[in-house]
Amino acid sequence: MTASSQPLADLGIVGGGQLARMTAERAAKLGLKTVVLDPSADCAAGDLATRHIEASFDDADGLRELVETTRVTTFDIEAGDAAILRQLESEGGKIHPSPSVLATIQDKLVQRRFLAEHGLPVPRFEDLPNAAPEAFASFGYPLVQKARHGGYDGRGVAVLRSADDLDRALTSPSMVEEQVAIARELAALVARRPNGDSVVYDIVELFPDDATHVLEALVFPAAMDEQTHRAAQDLGRAAIDALDGVGIFAVELFLDTNGKLWVNEISPRPHNAGHVTIEAAATCQFEQHLRAILDLPLGSTRAVSAAAMVNVLGPAGLDGNARVRELSPALEVPGARLHLYGKTRSWPGRKLGHLTVLDPDPDTALERAREARTRLEFVAKEVA
Amino acid sequence: MTASSQPLADLGIVGGGQLARMTAERAAKLGLKTVVLDPSADCAAGDLATRHIEASFDDADGLRELVETTRVTTFDIEAGDAAILRQLESEGGKIHPSPSVLATIQDKLVQRRFLAEHGLPVPRFEDLPNAAPEAFASFGYPLVQKARHGGYDGRGVAVLRSADDLDRALTSPSMVEEQVAIARELAALVARRPNGDSVVYDIVELFPDDATHVLEALVFPAAMDEQTHRAAQDLGRAAIDALDGVGIFAVELFLDTNGKLWVNEISPRPHNAGHVTIEAAATCQFEQHLRAILDLPLGSTRAVSAAAMVNVLGPAGLDGNARVRELSPALEVPGARLHLYGKTRSWPGRKLGHLTVLDPDPDTALERAREARTRLEFVAKEVA
Repeated sequence: MTASSQPLADLGIVGGGQLARMTAERAAKLGLKTVVLDPSADCAAGDLATRHIEASFDDADGLRELVETTRVTTFDIEAGDAAILRQLESEGGKIHPSPSVLATIQDKLVQRRFLAEHGLPVPRFEDLPNAAPEAFASFGYPLVQKARHGGYDGRGVAVLRSADDLDRALTSPSMVEEQVAIARELAALVARRPNGDSVVYDIVELFPDDATHVLEALVFPAAMDEQTHRAAQDLGRAAIDALDGVGIFAVELFLDTNGKLWVNEISPRPHNAGHVTIEAAATCQFEQHLRAILDLPLGSTRAVSAAAMVNVLGPAGLDGNARVRELSPALEVPGARLHLYGKTRSWPGRKLGHLTVLDPDPDTALERAREARTRLEFVAKEVA
Repeated sequence: MTASSQPLADLGIVGGGQLARMTAERAAKLGLKTVVLDPSADCAAGDLATRHIEASFDDADGLRELVETTRVTTFDIEAGDAAILRQLESEGGKIHPSPSVLATIQDKLVQRRFLAEHGLPVPRFEDLPNAAPEAFASFGYPLVQKARHGGYDGRGVAVLRSADDLDRALTSPSMVEEQVAIARELAALVARRPNGDSVVYDIVELFPDDATHVLEALVFPAAMDEQTHRAAQDLGRAAIDALDGVGIFAVELFLDTNGKLWVNEISPRPHNAGHVTIEAAATCQFEQHLRAILDLPLGSTRAVSAAAMVNVLGPAGLDGNARVRELSPALEVPGARLHLYGKTRSWPGRKLGHLTVLDPDPDTALERAREARTRLEFVAKEVA
C-alpha cells in the first residue's frame, strides 16, 4: 500500500450523511479521528470529521485516498464502488463490511439469491430481465417489483396488484417477488466482529409511511410474544452470520398475518431504525458499529427503557435553505429528545433529524414523539 | 450594540473546555451554532464550535466580539471578567448567567455572604484580610481556609486542624469557615429560566478524591431517604432563586453527621456532577442549560435509570501528548460508556474524559465504572 503524506486516521467513511455524522461523533468520544468521503461540500458529517475528501462514491482516487489514510474504512451508504474497494482490499486496505458483502447487498437480486441459498426465509422471487407485461403475468399478481440497484427508503419499489398497475412498473433492471401479507414490519440490529462474535438488540417495530414507505416512526422494543421476538433476533443473527458480515447491520423483517417471519432486506451500516439506541440502549448502534469494525469487544445491547423514535422530514412545499421556526413548541413535549443533523437545505421528504422519547410505555413514547414532531415547523431561511 | 461583519451565531461560550464541547455538541442537535472564546488554540471545544475566538477570559475585545456576534453568551468556566461583561450587558448584550451572578459567585466570600443573607444554611465564616496565625486562632480550629478567587477542583482550599497545620495555609486573599462534619457530599443540579421557572434533577452523591478533593466518582440518584432528598432539592432551588440565576447551576451540598444540609458552593454552569444526565436522565444538563439561557421550556429531569459516573484523569508521570493504549479492556466492562474530550495533552490530574454506567443498582454501576477506568491506560504519544 502506498504511504500517504496524511497521518493515519482511525476511521474512514464512504458517505457523509447523518449516519456518518453520528458515527464520527461517537468515534470522537472514543478518542478516534474520522475522515469522510462525500461529493457534497456541505455534507452533514463534514464539520465533525477531521477531514473531508470531496469525491463521488465511485471515484477511484478518492476511495484510494480514504482507504490508504485510515485504519479501517466503513460506510454510511451502500454506494461505494465495490470493484474499486475490492482492489483496495486486495492491496491490504481494511474495509468493513467487506466489499464482497457490499456487492452482495447492493444488488437486490444477488442479495435475495444469497439469502435463499443460505436457507433464510425470503418471499418467492425471480429475476426480471425485461419488464414485459407477460413476464409479470407469468410470475403472478399481486407482486412487488424491486429495482436491483440504488433503491432505498421506498424508492425503487413498485407494488403491482394486477395488470392494471403496469403503468407504475419500474423500467430499470429489476426483480419481482411475491407480496407478503405483512402484519408488522420489524428490524433486528446485529453487530458482528471479525471473529464471529455478535450481539443483537431487542427487535424494533417499524412504521413506514403508507404512501412513500419512508420510515415514519418506530417503537423499541416491538411489543410481541417472547418466542417471536427471539425468533426474529435469531433470524437477524443468522443472516449476518451467513454473510460473514463485520459491522452493524439492520435486518429488516416482515411478520406475516400467519405469524411467519421473512427476511426483507439487509443494510450493511448503522440504520435509521437504530437511532433509538442512542438513548434507549446501554450501547448505541454507532458505538457498536465502531467496536465491531475495529475488532473491539461488543457492548451491552440492554434496553435501558422502552422508547419511540420518529423521523423529522423536510416538509412539502419547501425546497431550499431552511430552519426551525421556533424550538419552544416541540421542546414543551415531556421527554422529547431532538436530533437535527445540521443540514442547511431542506427538500420534501429529506431526513433532517429525528425525535426520541423514552417512556416505560412505548405507546406514550410514540404519541409524545409524534406530538413533538407536529410542533416542529420548518420555514425558509434567508442565506446570510 | 455595534453590528459585526460576522453573522449572528446562537450561542457564545466563555471557555472552550469539555463543558463547552458538550454544550456545543448538544446545541448542534437543536440546530444551533456555537462560538467559543478560549486562549488555547487546541481547546477541547474548538473543533465542535462554528468559530473560536482565541483570547483570554479578560480580553475586552475578545469578550466584546463574543457577545456582539452571538444571541446569548454563557460560560464553561466562571472566569470571564465580570466588569467587562457587565459593560457589554449594559450595551444590550444578552449574557446568562448574568455578570452580576457571575461576580457574586466568583468571589467565595461574596458568595458566602450572599447565601447567608438569603437565609441559606452555610457554615460559620469570616473574611480573612491577612493570614496571620492570630487570625486563624481567633476564628478557631479546625477550620477551612478558602481562596476568595480562582479556586476549583479542590485547589484554593486548605483544611487546618490546628496551628500545626499553619504551613499549609494559603497566602492569597481568603476567607475561613467552620469545618462541617461531612457525612456525604451531594449536588443539586438546577436549571432556571428568565421567568423563574426551574427544574431540579434527582440529587447526585459525590465522591471526591481524599487527597486532591477532585471529583472521583458519583452515583445518581443519591441513596437517601425521600425527605432528605427533597430537602436537598429544595435547597438547590432556593439558592438559585435567591441568585435570580438563569442557566444550569450545580449547588454543592454537605449532609453533616447530624443529618443537617449545608450549602457548600455554587457553579454557574454545567458541572462535572451533571455528566451522568447525558445517559441517565430524560434531558441532559447541557440541553437543559441551553433551554434555560435561550428561554425555552425546560425539559423533563426524570431519571431514566440509576447510574454512576467516574472521572478519567491524566495519570501521574505523564505530561505531554497522550493516547489510550488500547480501548478493548475498558470496553469489555458491561455497559461502560466512554466519553473522551478530545484533549491532545495529558498532565497529572487533567480531566481527559469520564465513564458512565447505567444499572438499576447504583453500586453495581459504580463498581463497573471504576473497573472500566482502571482498564483505561494512557501512554505517551509521538506527535505526527
